[in-house]
Amino acid sequence: MNNVIIVAGGKGLRMGNDLPKQFMVVGGKPVLMRTIESFHNFDKSIRIIIALAKDYREHWSSLCKGYGFTVPHEVVDGGETRFHSVKNALDLVGDGLVAVHDAVRPFASNELLHMCFASVKVHQAVIPVIDVTDSLREITDENESKIVDRSKFRLVQTPQVFETKLLKQAYDVEFSDIFTDDASVVEAFGHKIYLVEGEKTNIKITTPFDLQLAKVILN
Amino acid sequence: MNNVIIVAGGKGLRMGNDLPKQFMVVGGKPVLMRTIESFHNFDKSIRIIIALAKDYREHWSSLCKGYGFTVPHEVVDGGETRFHSVKNALDLVGDGLVAVHDAVRPFASNELLHMCFASVKVHQAVIPVIDVTDSLREITDENESKIVDRSKFRLVQTPQVFETKLLKQAYDVEFSDIFTDDASVVEAFGHKIYLVEGEKTNIKITTPFDLQLAKVILN
Repeated sequence: MNNVIIVAGGKGLRMGNDLPKQFMVVGGKPVLMRTIESFHNFDKSIRIIIALAKDYREHWSSLCKGYGFTVPHEVVDGGETRFHSVKNALDLVGDGLVAVHDAVRPFASNELLHMCFASVKVHQAVIPVIDVTDSLREITDENESKIVDRSKFRLVQTPQVFETKLLKQAYDVEFSDIFTDDASVVEAFGHKIYLVEGEKTNIKITTPFDLQLAKVILN
Repeated sequence: MNNVIIVAGGKGLRMGNDLPKQFMVVGGKPVLMRTIESFHNFDKSIRIIIALAKDYREHWSSLCKGYGFTVPHEVVDGGETRFHSVKNALDLVGDGLVAVHDAVRPFASNELLHMCFASVKVHQAVIPVIDVTDSLREITDENESKIVDRSKFRLVQTPQVFETKLLKQAYDVEFSDIFTDDASVVEAFGHKIYLVEGEKTNIKITTPFDLQLAKVILN
């Protein structure tokens, strides 16, 4: 069985932050709904689990009512960090395959999802990456930096797809700051990560500029 | 005196390539004209030198006539690589400060140009950089990669601004593949590169997607 954990950001209303980007409307619909639909369109029977800060449950629920959004999905509480959110959601996942995806990446194509879920059957841990097109420098000291060979680096996207058993084993550790994504957790556990070609349009919407960009991608 | 070398890509019509992106029209005007205007608006007396493949001279000249484009600039022949183009253009530059800029980056703001030209008076070699917002992996072997700490890396933009004397001395070397930008040439010469904060909107237009993005930035 296929599962996807969609990680929605935002620490909760009491933090006094702006409304998290996953609730922003792009092309007449909140970003998170588009993200959910991309997985539902790929596999009508995929189990969709959203990790969402408790404070936003009611907001999300009324959004779903307001937009008549009926794609089946479950909601679990988001944790202190992305790591903790994924860990909470993993408790619900049974056997099979599991993707972890950013709530604010609504444009992963059907082809990309197919490729990731097909590759994971062979490689157990698969992530999409894209080339670095600008020159890249490494900060070596407070006021020092040096050019590095950009052809040796890749920018990482989601969905990051794993055999569920492997991901659960990997997440059975204490949190560390080096865990910036799921691949880094699985890698620390000692398993190799297989890279597939991502998509430039598979953007993460985190700034007002990205929201504008999202409108372009939609058209 | 301030100078800017604007490096236009494209190896020439006989290579059978598509029309280089600097001639594409964004918001009713070719990209290269917008790029030239950004420097002219920053400093009306800046000397503007365009390095352009010989085969495109006539095309550019008729574009200028057709659009009634009258911002003063000189054109020199582009070389085999970016390195050779800059070297050709440097022959025309006298004393003072010199920026090297991509023809397909039309959106560097006046504030950014001010900051770069102000900082270079103190630091002799200045480039704008932006943070890496996605996870970053390093390819360590044919089928191996590892996560790296993205907070230690920066994506490099242009304009890259130098004391002319320093840049000329640095360019007095044989070409090497490691020279992906001007900072790497100056760095190989042994001079430190000073980093300033770039702009996410200061994009390099290299794909059809970037052209769409350019329209968003214009509006």
